[in-house]
Amino acid sequence: MYAAVERLYPICRSITGDGVRATLDILAESLPIERRGVPSGTQAFDWTVPDEWNVRDAYIADRQGRRVVDFRRHSLHLVNYSVPVRATMTLDELRPHLHTLADRPDWIPYRTTYYHRNWGFCLADEQLRSMDEGPYEVVVDSTLEPGELTYGELVLPGESAEEVVISAHVCHPSLANDNLSGIAVAMEVARSLSACSARHFTYRFLFAPGTIGSLTWLSRNADVLSRIRHGLVVTGLAGPGPLVYKRSRRGERDVDRAAAHVVARRGGEIRSYSPYGYDERQFNAIGFDLPFGRLSRTPHGEYPEYHTSADDLSFVKPSELAESYLAVLELLDVLENDETHQNLSPYGEPQLGKRGLYPSTGGKPATDMVMAMLWVLAYSDGSTSLLDIASIAGSDFAGLRGAASALLAAGLLGRAAAA
Amino acid sequence: MYAAVERLYPICRSITGDGVRATLDILAESLPIERRGVPSGTQAFDWTVPDEWNVRDAYIADRQGRRVVDFRRHSLHLVNYSVPVRATMTLDELRPHLHTLADRPDWIPYRTTYYHRNWGFCLADEQLRSMDEGPYEVVVDSTLEPGELTYGELVLPGESAEEVVISAHVCHPSLANDNLSGIAVAMEVARSLSACSARHFTYRFLFAPGTIGSLTWLSRNADVLSRIRHGLVVTGLAGPGPLVYKRSRRGERDVDRAAAHVVARRGGEIRSYSPYGYDERQFNAIGFDLPFGRLSRTPHGEYPEYHTSADDLSFVKPSELAESYLAVLELLDVLENDETHQNLSPYGEPQLGKRGLYPSTGGKPATDMVMAMLWVLAYSDGSTSLLDIASIAGSDFAGLRGAASALLAAGLLGRAAAA
Amino acid sequence: MYAAVERLYPICRSITGDGVRATLDILAESLPIERRGVPSGTQAFDWTVPDEWNVRDAYIADRQGRRVVDFRRHSLHLVNYSVPVRATMTLDELRPHLHTLADRPDWIPYRTTYYHRNWGFCLADEQLRSMDEGPYEVVVDSTLEPGELTYGELVLPGESAEEVVISAHVCHPSLANDNLSGIAVAMEVARSLSACSARHFTYRFLFAPGTIGSLTWLSRNADVLSRIRHGLVVTGLAGPGPLVYKRSRRGERDVDRAAAHVVARRGGEIRSYSPYGYDERQFNAIGFDLPFGRLSRTPHGEYPEYHTSADDLSFVKPSELAESYLAVLELLDVLENDETHQNLSPYGEPQLGKRGLYPSTGGKPATDMVMAMLWVLAYSDGSTSLLDIASIAGSDFAGLRGAASALLAAGLLGRAAAA
Repeated sequence: MYAAVERLYPICRSITGDGVRATLDILAESLPIERRGVPSGTQAFDWTVPDEWNVRDAYIADRQGRRVVDFRRHSLHLVNYSVPVRATMTLDELRPHLHTLADRPDWIPYRTTYYHRNWGFCLADEQLRSMDEGPYEVVVDSTLEPGELTYGELVLPGESAEEVVISAHVCHPSLANDNLSGIAVAMEVARSLSACSARHFTYRFLFAPGTIGSLTWLSRNADVLSRIRHGLVVTGLAGPGPLVYKRSRRGERDVDRAAAHVVARRGGEIRSYSPYGYDERQFNAIGFDLPFGRLSRTPHGEYPEYHTSADDLSFVKPSELAESYLAVLELLDVLENDETHQNLSPYGEPQLGKRGLYPSTGGKPATDMVMAMLWVLAYSDGSTSLLDIASIAGSDFAGLRGAASALLAAGLLGRAAAA
Repeated sequence: MYAAVERLYPICRSITGDGVRATLDILAESLPIERRGVPSGTQAFDWTVPDEWNVRDAYIADRQGRRVVDFRRHSLHLVNYSVPVRATMTLDELRPHLHTLADRPDWIPYRTTYYHRNWGFCLADEQLRSMDEGPYEVVVDSTLEPGELTYGELVLPGESAEEVVISAHVCHPSLANDNLSGIAVAMEVARSLSACSARHFTYRFLFAPGTIGSLTWLSRNADVLSRIRHGLVVTGLAGPGPLVYKRSRRGERDVDRAAAHVVARRGGEIRSYSPYGYDERQFNAIGFDLPFGRLSRTPHGEYPEYHTSADDLSFVKPSELAESYLAVLELLDVLENDETHQNLSPYGEPQLGKRGLYPSTGGKPATDMVMAMLWVLAYSDGSTSLLDIASIAGSDFAGLRGAASALLAAGLLGRAAAA
Repeated sequence: MYAAVERLYPICRSITGDGVRATLDILAESLPIERRGVPSGTQAFDWTVPDEWNVRDAYIADRQGRRVVDFRRHSLHLVNYSVPVRATMTLDELRPHLHTLADRPDWIPYRTTYYHRNWGFCLADEQLRSMDEGPYEVVVDSTLEPGELTYGELVLPGESAEEVVISAHVCHPSLANDNLSGIAVAMEVARSLSACSARHFTYRFLFAPGTIGSLTWLSRNADVLSRIRHGLVVTGLAGPGPLVYKRSRRGERDVDRAAAHVVARRGGEIRSYSPYGYDERQFNAIGFDLPFGRLSRTPHGEYPEYHTSADDLSFVKPSELAESYLAVLELLDVLENDETHQNLSPYGEPQLGKRGLYPSTGGKPATDMVMAMLWVLAYSDGSTSLLDIASIAGSDFAGLRGAASALLAAGLLGRAAAA
């Protein structure tokens, strides 16, 4: 996963353009991701696919022709979606187009101007302070013309047509945690699932630009929406903080309960919905009302490196990606395997000992496996699922699932209905 | 407000008599309060309007004719509703009629004997300890005769016949916080509301003696009761403690939710109902079941000055009255303006930017106004009111109301139904 | 109660055999407990009554014929339900049959092998370490033959056929807290109830071996089950810890609410259900779904003395038994007397003063009795019981019950329906 992040990092992505296509090309090397193009001007609910933006070059050069600020050195230097410019300007004339972070003088901020025709440069505050009055040569060699919005989609069919959707935004330029981490984890999860012999749900992975990308997908997939059973936005899955799960808007959907279980047991944090953030805003909107949660580590805006050049390759650790990947797999495991059973020997405790399921010498504390079987037997009344029992018992889903398997094999438990 | 407290302080009020009328006369100088008289002997549910009580003079004089205890110096010196007495008594004979506070030797307690014909004097414990054996001349020059119970009422009509009732008890003698503070705040709120061009609700202010006064009002206004939508008892609104809201008996009425929001955001405290206190006991009684909360600062019995001569003008600060007044206005603002809306652009987030409602440069944190709009859009499903959203979002009602106005103006929101 | 524990302590009990009968004989000296015998081989749901086990003698003797381990010195020395053995063995051959506690080298553990034909000895670890290689004479002079399972039952009829069942397991050998404490408290409670002139409920006390005993009783009393209104397992009622109430499986049955009230007010702890423990496991099983809680002090497994020779007479204090006994009585008092009333004077507060129920001098704080009456009046709407009110008010059930009696006598309250 870290190698993927390294390879994707230098590319200048935006909500449209070559950067997104280059990113999807790299992803398509290892998984059959389908690339969709939607023409500029296409309506997506209240939004319109904008003109496509591409950059050949952009810089600010001093009188000696030295590039003081150079897009080729860092994709963040150019305000994303800047219109073409060729001008000579003094520093004072330039200032309204320059963005810095006064409290982080050596970091470059990330700024965009998607829906408002403008241009600008981002640079380190200390660099700005070292610049003389100029004049400077200012060049933004970009194009902003009718083209397309591009997104990638991968569908892994399952036994059921009901879908689990995993979405990662692909519009951010050289920012490692936001969101190359989410892209890399989603890819690795897709690889693991595609290697599985049997999947209950159909899995759909979306790699789309933020907001306009997810809205465009939503506007073109009205028939899919009713089949979406669970959804997850993955983003910011590296960084030193613990896992943070953000609930869906309604807050008590199945994915919320499953994620709360998995994340809490990993020492992570569960938060309520807020209408700010990533594409969970779109999926959860009242008109769709889809059950999408979001998994991240320290969320956007809560770590100083967020949306700056400090969100670089050194900010992302392979071990953090690995834990995030495992958490997503565990969550999907719960969604796939949460079943409801009926205790078939409900009149008192069945005699586990005569079936080899209970230690023969009594008087000692119960083992974890015995406890898990007792919890499953005590609450499997035909309407209480394994995840419900995990919540009642405060115990691990995987352990209860193992206990249920043993009890099913022993004929003490029957399947009630898919939860 | 403080000036009103100062002016009302010296008057000896009781549940009937000239003191209540003098108090209502002062209130009527600035607002058209209507005074109602109800004859002694009138039945009010389980209670009967008692004979009217008035005092010309009352004292205990020593052998030299010096007034050792003198009602004219402090209205608390006489047990409220004392029957007439003229006698010469030794200190030992007097003692059963004397009330002091052993642990507050320089304060005079407040005692009453409304429904049990008796008499007595209250004095500082240190004064009692300095008295010799006497004999003393004891005079209570009071009358207790058929008359009337008096209360004041002010109705400010609104667009709706549904009422908000604000009630303050007017039966306590020279006690500043309990309840001249409540009377003063209620008056100031009434003045503010009467200056409003438009009121949704009809507002009714009651200035009545405790218990028998509110019960008398309830017994004579059966037709009004079904129109009461919200009610608030105001009392003890000065003193150094934080605001304290006491919920209605059922605990989750609209006024409770609104007050909890306002008081919690001001750092105040929310408490459950208890059947002890002020006239909320009567309004909330099972047979009426009216949604009355109570607003105070430190409640009765929880500050040592309560029901003693130390609850004097120095115990009441203008700034405390002002904060209490603002809290009541905020509460009424929530009750007036809590509306339910329908998001008219529910398929994803509407593009606020093209309507000038979103900053043009992206990448920076959301402003409070943007967040408020996003909260309103995310939850305005036709059945979730602004106050509901304030509770979900943990944010300020006024901010959400402003956001809703902007969204209504932009055509993104429609009114669902009065909440 | 302590005397009963002392007398029962030396007896070697098991799930069948003479020890249980000897125990029931002692109990029958003071209360008319009926003894039931159920033949070996009888089916009880998934279980079968096993052969009856009795022990004449059991020991390990060294080459000098000295009894190194001797069942006659402590009943825990023999693994409960050991099959007969007569052999000469080296220590190495013996080892698989020896049980010790490495971390408590001077305590003898308690072990059983009820449903797996085996034998063994339990001894102090320090004793084992002092033993040489032998050979040893090993004797288990036990019988394991068709016989019966025995349990005791005591029914105290009440006005209602609905039953409260109190169950204590009687299968543990010389372990004082587990469960001679439970047996002794149950006996004392039975004595107190049988001395009562009037009982609302019928009370049934069960003294049965764990698991197989309660299941056998359940299998033979199908007609009783629908009449069981409340149930309580009593065990481990001595020891230094606070009272601990374990809720029924569903967690919010009447007995749970009553016990939570009583135990919390005594500073005890309330816990959720867990499917491990004592016979509450059987009564709460899905097929029966009976509302059984469990009262203990520090529960099984949470004190080091549990299931060892250190759970002896010195571990049990008369004062602990006394508090446990009082808590059970209080719980039964709530169950017997939780009634629902109707306020017959619901329009405001009734005038308590004219009925002599309110102090004649006003201005002072309310007394506990006045507060209790006000709570009962405020919430007695025909569907809120005294226990509900105790929970709302955070006050004592007994105080509210006293207040309700006074209000009933004054005609201010009427009985609604048995709760």
